[in-house]
Amino acid sequence: MTWKLAKNELDQDQLLVNESLLALGNGYIGVRGNFEEGYGDDLKSIRGTYINAFHDETKIKYGEKLYAFPDQQQKLANVIDAQGIDIFLDDEHFNLFEGKVVNFNRTLHIDEGYTSREVHWVSPNGREVKVNFNRLVSFSRKELFAIQVTVEPIRNVQKVKMVSTVNGNVTNYVEKGDPRVNSEHAKLVALGDARVVGDYRIVQVSTMNTNLSAACVTSYTAKASESIVDSGVIRDTFQFEAGSGPIVLTKKNVYTDTLRHGDDVVSRGVELQRELASFDHLLVEQKYYLDEFWKIADIEVQGDQRLQQGIRFNLFHLLQSVGKDSVSNIAAKGLSGEGYEGHYFWDTEIYIFPFFLMTNPEMAKSLLMHRYSTLDHARNRAKEMGHEKGALFPWRTITGPESSAFFPAGTAQYHISADIAYSFIQYYLVTKDVSFMQDYLAEVLFETARLWVDTGHMKDGHFRIDNVTGPDEYTCIVNNNFYTNSMAKYNLDWAYKIYQELDDKAKTDIQDRIGLEVGEVLAWKEAADYMYLPYSEKLGINEQDDTFLSKKVWDFDNTSEEDYPLLLNYHPLTLYRHQVCKQADTVLAHFLVEDHQDEETIRRSYDYYEKVTTHDSSLSYCVFSIMAAKLGYKEKAYRYFNETARLDLDNLHKNTKDGLHMANMGGTWLALVYGFAGLRLKEDGLHFSPVVVEEFGQLSFHIKFQGRTLKVELSDKFVHYTVMEGESLNIHHIGKGVQLEPGQRKSFTY
Amino acid sequence: MTWKLAKNELDQDQLLVNESLLALGNGYIGVRGNFEEGYGDDLKSIRGTYINAFHDETKIKYGEKLYAFPDQQQKLANVIDAQGIDIFLDDEHFNLFEGKVVNFNRTLHIDEGYTSREVHWVSPNGREVKVNFNRLVSFSRKELFAIQVTVEPIRNVQKVKMVSTVNGNVTNYVEKGDPRVNSEHAKLVALGDARVVGDYRIVQVSTMNTNLSAACVTSYTAKASESIVDSGVIRDTFQFEAGSGPIVLTKKNVYTDTLRHGDDVVSRGVELQRELASFDHLLVEQKYYLDEFWKIADIEVQGDQRLQQGIRFNLFHLLQSVGKDSVSNIAAKGLSGEGYEGHYFWDTEIYIFPFFLMTNPEMAKSLLMHRYSTLDHARNRAKEMGHEKGALFPWRTITGPESSAFFPAGTAQYHISADIAYSFIQYYLVTKDVSFMQDYLAEVLFETARLWVDTGHMKDGHFRIDNVTGPDEYTCIVNNNFYTNSMAKYNLDWAYKIYQELDDKAKTDIQDRIGLEVGEVLAWKEAADYMYLPYSEKLGINEQDDTFLSKKVWDFDNTSEEDYPLLLNYHPLTLYRHQVCKQADTVLAHFLVEDHQDEETIRRSYDYYEKVTTHDSSLSYCVFSIMAAKLGYKEKAYRYFNETARLDLDNLHKNTKDGLHMANMGGTWLALVYGFAGLRLKEDGLHFSPVVVEEFGQLSFHIKFQGRTLKVELSDKFVHYTVMEGESLNIHHIGKGVQLEPGQRKSFTY
Repeated sequence: MTWKLAKNELDQDQLLVNESLLALGNGYIGVRGNFEEGYGDDLKSIRGTYINAFHDETKIKYGEKLYAFPDQQQKLANVIDAQGIDIFLDDEHFNLFEGKVVNFNRTLHIDEGYTSREVHWVSPNGREVKVNFNRLVSFSRKELFAIQVTVEPIRNVQKVKMVSTVNGNVTNYVEKGDPRVNSEHAKLVALGDARVVGDYRIVQVSTMNTNLSAACVTSYTAKASESIVDSGVIRDTFQFEAGSGPIVLTKKNVYTDTLRHGDDVVSRGVELQRELASFDHLLVEQKYYLDEFWKIADIEVQGDQRLQQGIRFNLFHLLQSVGKDSVSNIAAKGLSGEGYEGHYFWDTEIYIFPFFLMTNPEMAKSLLMHRYSTLDHARNRAKEMGHEKGALFPWRTITGPESSAFFPAGTAQYHISADIAYSFIQYYLVTKDVSFMQDYLAEVLFETARLWVDTGHMKDGHFRIDNVTGPDEYTCIVNNNFYTNSMAKYNLDWAYKIYQELDDKAKTDIQDRIGLEVGEVLAWKEAADYMYLPYSEKLGINEQDDTFLSKKVWDFDNTSEEDYPLLLNYHPLTLYRHQVCKQADTVLAHFLVEDHQDEETIRRSYDYYEKVTTHDSSLSYCVFSIMAAKLGYKEKAYRYFNETARLDLDNLHKNTKDGLHMANMGGTWLALVYGFAGLRLKEDGLHFSPVVVEEFGQLSFHIKFQGRTLKVELSDKFVHYTVMEGESLNIHHIGKGVQLEPGQRKSFTY
Repeated sequence: MTWKLAKNELDQDQLLVNESLLALGNGYIGVRGNFEEGYGDDLKSIRGTYINAFHDETKIKYGEKLYAFPDQQQKLANVIDAQGIDIFLDDEHFNLFEGKVVNFNRTLHIDEGYTSREVHWVSPNGREVKVNFNRLVSFSRKELFAIQVTVEPIRNVQKVKMVSTVNGNVTNYVEKGDPRVNSEHAKLVALGDARVVGDYRIVQVSTMNTNLSAACVTSYTAKASESIVDSGVIRDTFQFEAGSGPIVLTKKNVYTDTLRHGDDVVSRGVELQRELASFDHLLVEQKYYLDEFWKIADIEVQGDQRLQQGIRFNLFHLLQSVGKDSVSNIAAKGLSGEGYEGHYFWDTEIYIFPFFLMTNPEMAKSLLMHRYSTLDHARNRAKEMGHEKGALFPWRTITGPESSAFFPAGTAQYHISADIAYSFIQYYLVTKDVSFMQDYLAEVLFETARLWVDTGHMKDGHFRIDNVTGPDEYTCIVNNNFYTNSMAKYNLDWAYKIYQELDDKAKTDIQDRIGLEVGEVLAWKEAADYMYLPYSEKLGINEQDDTFLSKKVWDFDNTSEEDYPLLLNYHPLTLYRHQVCKQADTVLAHFLVEDHQDEETIRRSYDYYEKVTTHDSSLSYCVFSIMAAKLGYKEKAYRYFNETARLDLDNLHKNTKDGLHMANMGGTWLALVYGFAGLRLKEDGLHFSPVVVEEFGQLSFHIKFQGRTLKVELSDKFVHYTVMEGESLNIHHIGKGVQLEPGQRKSFTY
């Protein structure tokens, strides 16, 4: 069962959660796991279909609006709903919340890429039927969302009627009282068109302000007895006689939008409809695509089926969510819900990117290219924020403009610029792609390095960066956040280094392109060399910022379970005033740039910060797992990993209904590969410092690195490395250089 | 001319400014100095009539709303407009923006309490006329706003028609792009009633959400030829034949509201109408009231008529603006405009209160009683903000709830609780009123002391207060703001002291009332004794907060004139990141609690902070003037005082159109009495350390203290003290004790 997720709940809370868990997507479109026929009026559903990056802009209201607060916020739009299919047995409405459910199973087929919903049901008047819904969002045909319904009458059924809808009258979900969810502007798209043309049902919508259009062109494998267009909804009725075996209807919906398909989204949708295959063929295609994916991406563990399921579930959803074209990225909730408005955060670079980088470098590059496409926005934002030069990437955005409405935990998180620079560097370390370095990496590094020099300043022999917010959002607007300064130092060091690596032509080229002066490059070096990294002599740890350790420690003993997450129960000032962390901050810096500090400082820091961290952010467990593994705290590493692997499956953060926690899903991969296998990417290649974890029994995975495919296996006594594809490779195993020959399995003890 | 303000501008900018400068009020109602007939369609006017504390509540919108952010904001409502009077000369409309203005003078009569507008005008068709508008808002009859129009036809005029309106269809002023002004919710009141009943025109409005009503009942001294009620406007037409001398019409408007007059505001308005006197009589009453006021409140300076005018203008507007009943206070803009939404800030306690305290203690007490009435709100707010006990007063409010929508420069300014405690202590020092001490002072001190103990904590031998904002809003959310900690220490010290002074009965009483435990009192003492007051050994100054001096100094040389005020041109983070102050912060603390530091620290601090202060806040100049005087920087003291005295008259902050700067007006008095005369209130009485300022020639004023009236005169060589009323008094002159006998003028050198 580790390739499946099976669900059969019918209660309100879990129905909403399952809508996220059973969401299907392919990085372009995403469809929540709603019931085709809905739940009826008594139960709430967050019914949603999304196109990655397809967004409207709404005005941000402020009680008090200050200079350079963003005016507009981008929001991912819920688009045309093609999920609707109602079934009638002699006019009795098929509905799981009436009659008798003899059997009910929903399954996400992680290896095959589709969901099934199997129901054996007896109606209130005794009509018995088996119904099966198979759903698929195709990886090979990105515009396609297909549903196949099979109805098998068992008893007392004469006629079966299906009423299928395509609905252009959709709104976004709105919820008050949770700052992580949209609280107004439900209506983001207006109906443009809804009509039947030959075999095609065509619905088109347009955003209210951004002038984007999306279309859904739908076809059926049966002939409708009636097609009605009413108020933006196309309703097709299909009539069947019972008695001659199962009744099957397939509904294929093609989604197109302005961002990918140009202005005539409808024509393009019709064209794509003409090329579609049968549902069975789609399943085969899907399996083929996923076989290729899992060949590299899968991570096998032994001993704990629940963990194995969590790992695969999480990696599968990453694949389903990641944008694979130049206009999209991966949203905090992927395409599985509306939480965080479909925005892209640093989650991409720090938590999710490494998985793609080392299993599918093309997808990783696409993520970088999307960021690169927003560089002009980042340059403008830096100017708005009072900087003479440089690029300040937005804390949250879709196409590039800052969409954060609360700057202390938004724009103030300057570290995102270093995080993005970091991911560009990681890509270069893995690919050694020199033209990428010259064309993109240099520019991103130089513009972000400029930001740091303009933001900070030399004082008493230190380069200080004042008034920023680090990853920990329970401590905002501080001086010399250790994480930020560490990442900025890395950014500046690499900017200097890459400048030296450029050949003369490339140097001239970039100097012309961004007006770079040599004096600037020296300033980067100086800032990096003198970067202030707070350290407490007394405790022997890195201080999270200039004054974190002077604050009162949060009274954890007198904080009850219901008070978590603290952000929903305490004013930010109360949080800021205490030593209490929402998530890994200094500990994360120690993971990402471990060479800045000695291991004992890292250990003492871990011990200290672990005590004051609530993990109210889903970005926390995985980092603590990784660092616990590094420090030999195996039991902790395993425990934190469990939280990571099962966070959405077990709804540990209680908000999975709003969408899946993508960063944590990426963190699952990180915890295995960077945590237990102890991988680090350094200039001299791959370093492994694996730790044995008894609970796993065994752990094996593949990574791609500089043209090779490397298989890594951890068992209870040995670690095995095998170059599966490509040339020989030098790696480091626990600090020692090792040469791996192709095809040869080399084994080491821990 | 030092008792008058004369204006005759007709350009757009100055018209708006003059609406504020020539506003009339009495602490209950305020009427902006609009033209009765308006300016015509091409010119903007902020037409306004306000009732102190009469407010609606509107929803605060946040892009991202976090825990305990206020939901609602109170807003002073623009109420019924009774200013309207149009004049027609044979149907030619009297309008200063057409025809020829032969002569035009507007005058604010500071000593008599009314304004006049005298116009000699020739119409486009050659009709010549003199028109005079006298306006008065009565101090003796707080509900009354009266206008007397006199029309004197000179040439070619046959008939004079006046059309007078009372308009219930009013909206508030809205302006985008300035966070200091309302940017939405123009409509705060709805029309309730508009009708003519006998001689009375009655218009009544109600707020949209707060369920408050206001009425205006209007009467005329002439009989209308026509009275029309249309869409909430009552329009009366008066016809006169020219030829028999001046034509006079008096319009008397009585304003009532729910907060003062109960539910039946209309009946109460009609009753009050029945008691009114003639306009001439009103003028006499007004003069009498003002004579009494000026007898104590006036400050005479010599040598500079413009300064003398500024001083009187400012003191007069304080009197016009201060609420004199238990439901009102004094708004940041008084009743002269809509800036800052009619909210009460710390401006009251720190800048304005001392003037009333020492010239009119009853009015001062009324301000304290209003604050006291909001204590329960402050207790609730403390709880919302995560405190177990204590009272946190709102940064901005009308009736008590926090109305600040941007907490870093709002709620985070915890110092307001210490500021309020400070004013209660000052009142006690001046009156030695023991029953006040037992009934009010103790409770306010104890509840605010509790707040400090709960907010701060002991660490390494210091009591620290983290994550608050001091007065300087260009540096928000800091640790150990020197001002806050100094004021908290004073608050805690006095809480402890007053507890000791209470007799047993009073002790028991308050212990019961607020559940006080003796251990708490000891904790106040400990917090006060160990209060951390940041000090830089290197510079020998008090540091504004833990890290202020580590920041980059603002690049003042490369900041152009148009970039000020910085808040309108830079993101808050840019400001926070630099050593740049909007206003006096540490310097203000050194003024209010000077005994915490030695004079050389105070001097070095002044020298340091002066260089990095922009005075973008109008609360800054006066403090720098006071402290410059103390430190012997006479030229500076005089220069800053000039800015203070003339700030609104010369529109130095460019936003006088939105209302007058009340705190600065109070600062005018402070700069004279606390600055040049060097007054300080201490436990052992009044201390004077006067400085001679050549530019003044002479300075004289009165203050009330413990039942006496003391006259103080500064001339070029001598300082004279005279007890004008009451018993003998011991004061300190430049550190030496002096006994003053009643009626005896004692003279000293500087």
